[in-house]
Amino acid sequence: MDIKDQFTQLPHTLSKLKIPRFRVIQPKRKNPPGQGPGTYYINDNALSSKLFVYSYDEEHLDELQTTSIDEALQFMAHYPERSHWLDIKGLGTQEVLNTMQIHFKVNPLVLEDVVNTYQRPKVQDYEDYLFITSRMLELDRGLQLKNEQLSFLLFPKLVISFQEDYDDVLDPVRNRLRKSVKGNIRALGASYLLYALMDTVMDHYFTIANRLGEELEMIEDHLYQKPRKLLMYRIQGVKKLVISMRRAAWPERDKLNELLRTNSVLITEDTKVFIRDAYDHSIQAIDLIESMKETASSLLDLYLSLISNKMNEVMKTLTIISAIFIPLTFIAGVYGMNFQRQDPVTGKVLANNMPELYIHNGYLYVLGGMLLIAIFQIWYFAKRGWFRD
Amino acid sequence: MDIKDQFTQLPHTLSKLKIPRFRVIQPKRKNPPGQGPGTYYINDNALSSKLFVYSYDEEHLDELQTTSIDEALQFMAHYPERSHWLDIKGLGTQEVLNTMQIHFKVNPLVLEDVVNTYQRPKVQDYEDYLFITSRMLELDRGLQLKNEQLSFLLFPKLVISFQEDYDDVLDPVRNRLRKSVKGNIRALGASYLLYALMDTVMDHYFTIANRLGEELEMIEDHLYQKPRKLLMYRIQGVKKLVISMRRAAWPERDKLNELLRTNSVLITEDTKVFIRDAYDHSIQAIDLIESMKETASSLLDLYLSLISNKMNEVMKTLTIISAIFIPLTFIAGVYGMNFQRQDPVTGKVLANNMPELYIHNGYLYVLGGMLLIAIFQIWYFAKRGWFRD
Amino acid sequence: MDIKDQFTQLPHTLSKLKIPRFRVIQPKRKNPPGQGPGTYYINDNALSSKLFVYSYDEEHLDELQTTSIDEALQFMAHYPERSHWLDIKGLGTQEVLNTMQIHFKVNPLVLEDVVNTYQRPKVQDYEDYLFITSRMLELDRGLQLKNEQLSFLLFPKLVISFQEDYDDVLDPVRNRLRKSVKGNIRALGASYLLYALMDTVMDHYFTIANRLGEELEMIEDHLYQKPRKLLMYRIQGVKKLVISMRRAAWPERDKLNELLRTNSVLITEDTKVFIRDAYDHSIQAIDLIESMKETASSLLDLYLSLISNKMNEVMKTLTIISAIFIPLTFIAGVYGMNFQRQDPVTGKVLANNMPELYIHNGYLYVLGGMLLIAIFQIWYFAKRGWFRD
Amino acid sequence: MDIKDQFTQLPHTLSKLKIPRFRVIQPKRKNPPGQGPGTYYINDNALSSKLFVYSYDEEHLDELQTTSIDEALQFMAHYPERSHWLDIKGLGTQEVLNTMQIHFKVNPLVLEDVVNTYQRPKVQDYEDYLFITSRMLELDRGLQLKNEQLSFLLFPKLVISFQEDYDDVLDPVRNRLRKSVKGNIRALGASYLLYALMDTVMDHYFTIANRLGEELEMIEDHLYQKPRKLLMYRIQGVKKLVISMRRAAWPERDKLNELLRTNSVLITEDTKVFIRDAYDHSIQAIDLIESMKETASSLLDLYLSLISNKMNEVMKTLTIISAIFIPLTFIAGVYGMNFQRQDPVTGKVLANNMPELYIHNGYLYVLGGMLLIAIFQIWYFAKRGWFRD
Amino acid sequence: MDIKDQFTQLPHTLSKLKIPRFRVIQPKRKNPPGQGPGTYYINDNALSSKLFVYSYDEEHLDELQTTSIDEALQFMAHYPERSHWLDIKGLGTQEVLNTMQIHFKVNPLVLEDVVNTYQRPKVQDYEDYLFITSRMLELDRGLQLKNEQLSFLLFPKLVISFQEDYDDVLDPVRNRLRKSVKGNIRALGASYLLYALMDTVMDHYFTIANRLGEELEMIEDHLYQKPRKLLMYRIQGVKKLVISMRRAAWPERDKLNELLRTNSVLITEDTKVFIRDAYDHSIQAIDLIESMKETASSLLDLYLSLISNKMNEVMKTLTIISAIFIPLTFIAGVYGMNFQRQDPVTGKVLANNMPELYIHNGYLYVLGGMLLIAIFQIWYFAKRGWFRD
Repeated sequence: MDIKDQFTQLPHTLSKLKIPRFRVIQPKRKNPPGQGPGTYYINDNALSSKLFVYSYDEEHLDELQTTSIDEALQFMAHYPERSHWLDIKGLGTQEVLNTMQIHFKVNPLVLEDVVNTYQRPKVQDYEDYLFITSRMLELDRGLQLKNEQLSFLLFPKLVISFQEDYDDVLDPVRNRLRKSVKGNIRALGASYLLYALMDTVMDHYFTIANRLGEELEMIEDHLYQKPRKLLMYRIQGVKKLVISMRRAAWPERDKLNELLRTNSVLITEDTKVFIRDAYDHSIQAIDLIESMKETASSLLDLYLSLISNKMNEVMKTLTIISAIFIPLTFIAGVYGMNFQRQDPVTGKVLANNMPELYIHNGYLYVLGGMLLIAIFQIWYFAKRGWFRD
Repeated sequence: MDIKDQFTQLPHTLSKLKIPRFRVIQPKRKNPPGQGPGTYYINDNALSSKLFVYSYDEEHLDELQTTSIDEALQFMAHYPERSHWLDIKGLGTQEVLNTMQIHFKVNPLVLEDVVNTYQRPKVQDYEDYLFITSRMLELDRGLQLKNEQLSFLLFPKLVISFQEDYDDVLDPVRNRLRKSVKGNIRALGASYLLYALMDTVMDHYFTIANRLGEELEMIEDHLYQKPRKLLMYRIQGVKKLVISMRRAAWPERDKLNELLRTNSVLITEDTKVFIRDAYDHSIQAIDLIESMKETASSLLDLYLSLISNKMNEVMKTLTIISAIFIPLTFIAGVYGMNFQRQDPVTGKVLANNMPELYIHNGYLYVLGGMLLIAIFQIWYFAKRGWFRD
Repeated sequence: MDIKDQFTQLPHTLSKLKIPRFRVIQPKRKNPPGQGPGTYYINDNALSSKLFVYSYDEEHLDELQTTSIDEALQFMAHYPERSHWLDIKGLGTQEVLNTMQIHFKVNPLVLEDVVNTYQRPKVQDYEDYLFITSRMLELDRGLQLKNEQLSFLLFPKLVISFQEDYDDVLDPVRNRLRKSVKGNIRALGASYLLYALMDTVMDHYFTIANRLGEELEMIEDHLYQKPRKLLMYRIQGVKKLVISMRRAAWPERDKLNELLRTNSVLITEDTKVFIRDAYDHSIQAIDLIESMKETASSLLDLYLSLISNKMNEVMKTLTIISAIFIPLTFIAGVYGMNFQRQDPVTGKVLANNMPELYIHNGYLYVLGGMLLIAIFQIWYFAKRGWFRD
Repeated sequence: MDIKDQFTQLPHTLSKLKIPRFRVIQPKRKNPPGQGPGTYYINDNALSSKLFVYSYDEEHLDELQTTSIDEALQFMAHYPERSHWLDIKGLGTQEVLNTMQIHFKVNPLVLEDVVNTYQRPKVQDYEDYLFITSRMLELDRGLQLKNEQLSFLLFPKLVISFQEDYDDVLDPVRNRLRKSVKGNIRALGASYLLYALMDTVMDHYFTIANRLGEELEMIEDHLYQKPRKLLMYRIQGVKKLVISMRRAAWPERDKLNELLRTNSVLITEDTKVFIRDAYDHSIQAIDLIESMKETASSLLDLYLSLISNKMNEVMKTLTIISAIFIPLTFIAGVYGMNFQRQDPVTGKVLANNMPELYIHNGYLYVLGGMLLIAIFQIWYFAKRGWFRD
Repeated sequence: MDIKDQFTQLPHTLSKLKIPRFRVIQPKRKNPPGQGPGTYYINDNALSSKLFVYSYDEEHLDELQTTSIDEALQFMAHYPERSHWLDIKGLGTQEVLNTMQIHFKVNPLVLEDVVNTYQRPKVQDYEDYLFITSRMLELDRGLQLKNEQLSFLLFPKLVISFQEDYDDVLDPVRNRLRKSVKGNIRALGASYLLYALMDTVMDHYFTIANRLGEELEMIEDHLYQKPRKLLMYRIQGVKKLVISMRRAAWPERDKLNELLRTNSVLITEDTKVFIRDAYDHSIQAIDLIESMKETASSLLDLYLSLISNKMNEVMKTLTIISAIFIPLTFIAGVYGMNFQRQDPVTGKVLANNMPELYIHNGYLYVLGGMLLIAIFQIWYFAKRGWFRD
């Protein structure tokens, strides 16, 4: 799925969208207040779990897709010497969670956090295993940002991942796992796999940020041509997404830093070099996101300046036309008045009340006067620079 | 009491509220300056105390409701092996406070803080007991945020809680206490109960934040349709409440952090795991509140942009109509002037003063000229893009 | 002097104030640059010193009011076992300062700071004594904030305080000193007295903050009714005072914190518990001040939004009326034109030039047309929502 | 030169300045990029050096003014027991700099910084000597802020100072040196002299800040009377200067703090007490500068509010007059139309086409109707509060 | 290439640019997400590598230009005692990168960062060598800021530099290398060379900042004359560049600080003195950049104030003219009405319907009345200060 392609035609459909809304789809805390800790309810609209097992060593890779957690466990038991990745998509199957608690001895507080998918990125060290949460961001066709929780359990030779949905951004890791025989990903065990998964999630932040960056550049181009209201909506929308990304990226960085400094034996020294690399990436991502936030703000300022400018231009047009014609209309009105003195005898109108009306060529004199007034005003406005810029 | 339900009909009543005010009801420092420390006056409008005692162990639970502190003490004395929760609602009974000082040897500085209900969340370790204050937030029907003080005294087997009002948000804890036989809340003693109470208070922050978040979304929807003044008032109102929540949430986090790091024996190690969980919640709550503050600010910016836009639109309408008709009216005025030359003999008006008036079809020529002027102007405004957007 | 009462009638006099200015009266650095350190000049308009001595122990209290420092020293020498408070009001008597230097061996740098009353709150430990400065704030009738320096010297059994003016906010301490026989203030010696004085000063911050808070609430109420320019001035004024308070409150907090952490023997451990209390108060005061600053800023934003709104409303009124009547006036102007063709023989005006004028009921047709145009425009504006809100 | 006096008459000349510009005169980095470190070029427009030597001990003071560095060295060699101040004004004489390098063994990097006069305030410890730079600010008649570099070399018994220009703000130190026989400045050696020089520079920050503060107060007074464009320029100008001061003051404070914490033997313990005093001054100066920056910003906000207000007032005037007279003009226009029906026989105009025109007293009825419309509109606008404030 | 000269004529071409855009040309992260670390793809439009070798000691310098990395290695092998600079321009030759990995044993993660030219400035210590990245900024004719990556590998006697393009800003270093026989640059080895290169890059920040500073001053001058839209675009453009510089400068400073504190033996103590100097430069650059950002923001504020002012002026013009002439036109309209009463017998118009029309000199009275109204209005507006600025 190439995100870039989807959006290249968007600008053209711009004018058709009535109220563009850049939405963030994000889980909310739904459990009622006062609930005991470590109790977790499977969400009503949670998807039933699909399990994907990858059992690998430097030379072999076996995969299994199933919906039965028991089958998955048996499959992994076949290859006790290998590393495993148990990828659980969909959090709707109670049995899977129970197995976690019973078979893997996972603390109920952890499972509560797995199910309540609004956790901030964090690392928790439970000695036998590490519990790690990431925010996996995806930007879909309609510029909606899906903010999904991706939880990991890291055991000595096993990574268990939990996802809310069936689709994710982890395919590149799967491909490397399949193709890079004897490569790092096959040789360096579970903690390297964990790194690879987290780094791929972080890589996706760049993809999204670049996409939104292009959107901002496009908006800027349009803005310089004409400050349309639609563009302002779009800036606001991008800003909303960027702020949302920022909220995910900062704790992601802290999490990676914590992983770097952990003394858990589950993270091998070999892997730490790579986690340092991922940490660098997270800093770069934050840098990029912060600069986009700044860009969005300054585009909004630009928009407001342009609107002010435009208002100024409109007002100047109105003022120039009114200022020129209103006085002239007044003069015309004066000579449209019906003052008259009639000769009491003949009933003829006498010229001595509005004498200008009866002057020879008075009409032309008045027209000429009007022209002079208009010219004076145009000259005055030109001098004040109203016609420039 | 389901907060959600109360507000779902609010949008419909929106237009009926004349000046919506989102108020914060918060105690203010009322004691006169220079008063000696440790002196406390019962507030004039303080409610008389109602006492609720819960004495429990893993298998038993006995409750008592009374207004006599002595009765409560006797009740607890019956079950010396059990843990107790003495819930005091209403701070208006002097006798209760005296008992604290005499029977429980509570420092007068503590009682001063219990009675002066404007304390920031804090923990104070008095060796024999811990004194803890929380801010309990409640959002009522009329979008008023009640910011009440909830004080705790934690003794080895006893939690004493002090509330200003009779109603609170702690029912979920009472229910768990009653129902979860052998559960953590019954087995882990007083410090766990304290945790459960503080966590429930913190949970309520989420409920309110979600409610206000929905309000903001509703406002955003309305705003994109039409930037009404009422919406701006509502944004300002929500922002006010959010800022108020923020002031409560930050020290609440610090307090939980301090509890985590305390080395008081009153907080058992078992409980600290849960307090760490509550601390995580407080960080999430702050995260949510900060992002709502940001949202409210950007909605206000949006409102101002829309107002500017609208003003622009209004001005353009005025300018277009004026620019077209004012010059035409001037022309009509010119030909309404009464310049004339009368034949001195016949009294007939001669055609040689305003000759256009006497041209054959002059009237049609003038109308045509006016039409041309109007068309030119419309073309000009169209070219400048005044009719788009 | 009850500050509250003075202001309750202010709102009514609001409209009479022409340009309300909320002033801050604050000493400025006046000594010429490059002056040697430790040289101090008595200010030209400094008041001559009045001395008040309070010599007390748990059971006795003797007071003396005098203008002679020698008399005061002799008075204190009578009660060598007691604690003393030497309260010096007015810094204009050279002899008093000399005595400080000679009798009490006070460093000239300290006396320079006592006389130059623009010091920030600070603590300086000179081993034999502590030198402490506070900012004492008073809000007077005309909403002027007096920011006075209150300096203390703490000796083992003696507190010396220096004030610029004769009136202060310390009466509550004097009353406690007189009344609370065997109370803490009489029993706990000089460092407790110092605490009591500083705490009373800090208490006054709350009084002022509450007063300004009421002002802001009043302004908000008025603002929602009508955004008058006067209100904007008042907001700006309150903001100015709040910023000034903030500048005093933050270092005040730092000072108290430093006192808490000092290891000077002059501050007894008994007193430190209370200083911790005062420190808590200072944090609460800062919290309150910061939130008032935020409120003032958001009221200013509100004011600007309302002004924008109002401008919009004014413009809409103008545009609607102009848009309706300008075209109609044009039509009327057209039929006011004097195009005519006269019968060359009879001099009669012929109907074939402006034929509409001679149509039967042409007048009514035109009036009807005008009505249609007006109705169309009103409908158009209504559709665009110009009449709502 | 009394800065205060120079400006007191400024307000009166306000209206004569066409475009007031508050300039900052500040050296810029001019050397080409990539130059080797420690190479310094004498600036083309550098002034030739004038040397002033002050050789002093507690009882004696000898001064020398010369342009020859050799003469100065000989002069100082006469009094090997004394402390010396070698004040070098003008950086244009190569020989002087060479002597620094050869005779005093000063590092070329130091001399580069002396010559390139855009250094931030800093301290560098070269063991044998300390190198210190200060920013010396001067405000001249035309409100130009001269930001000059003042560099010091501190040797055990010698202070060398380098200035760009011939005039400075250090006269008070020279006077104290001359007058205060046996005073600190004569007794405490070179490091005290260094302190005195730096403190005098810092004192001048207060002088300038007070001057700009008065300017802001004057602007505020004018602003409340009438928001003139000139005032806005002045606020912007003051703000520019204040920002420039701020950039100098913060590192100045850091520098003093670093001097306080240095363990160089060149700074005696006696002097450190005084440096602490200077450090306090720098904090006060920053405090003052920051509050002026805040004041300038809020005056700009005030200006914009007032402009908005004024625009509102202008628009209301236009709208009221237009709204009243445009409809009335329309009515007058209607009765100015020439609809008529002539009696085909008599040529008389018949009354049945615009019958109102022929009603008895129709004219008065119309005038009355117009009056009613006008009264209604005035009442309407009054009700909406357009005439108040 | 003298940057200064290129721009001096720009102001004159200002009006010809239609939409000036100040662009930042900056590499973007282009590799697909999820890629394994340490894999690097040569960019499609990367330039083929040109190699420049400088082998030098205090007395000798030999240079080589080639495209073959093997040739370069052989060349350097000739002078094993000398220091070398291998300057690689263009990153498009795979063979060069392979040699790095094989011959110099450079970690693939490093080469990935060399090729992906969007790294933030950083230092990485790989024991055998240091890996350092800088951002090299260049401002071209069209005010485009090129933000290129310059990477360094520092070995004991060798600096390898990698550049994206063939042109750079490092010529001054090359010249010093050639000319300054026995100078520091020839004597102090590879780490000094590294310092010289980084310092030259940093020096260029000043050149650009000074250029943009001049642009801002020019804009300010123009702005005070007339607030043209073009100027606003230019301010926004400069601000964009400044923000971009800021993003490069801050991590550059951190990098230099890290180099200062490193304990790698590759950086000699002799060099650290100079790195400290470069670090000081970076602080000065940041100081300059921050102050330019502030200036740009305040120019934007100024622009908006001026636009508001101008709008006010336009509105006042409109209002004054409308307010004066609209009522007068109304009066003229009234006396243009055709009310009449004809004598039923004679057909003569009787004077008793609009009697003013028949008053002797009625016309003059009306003209006089109009004049009075106009005078009154002008007086009224003058009194309200509408004619003054």
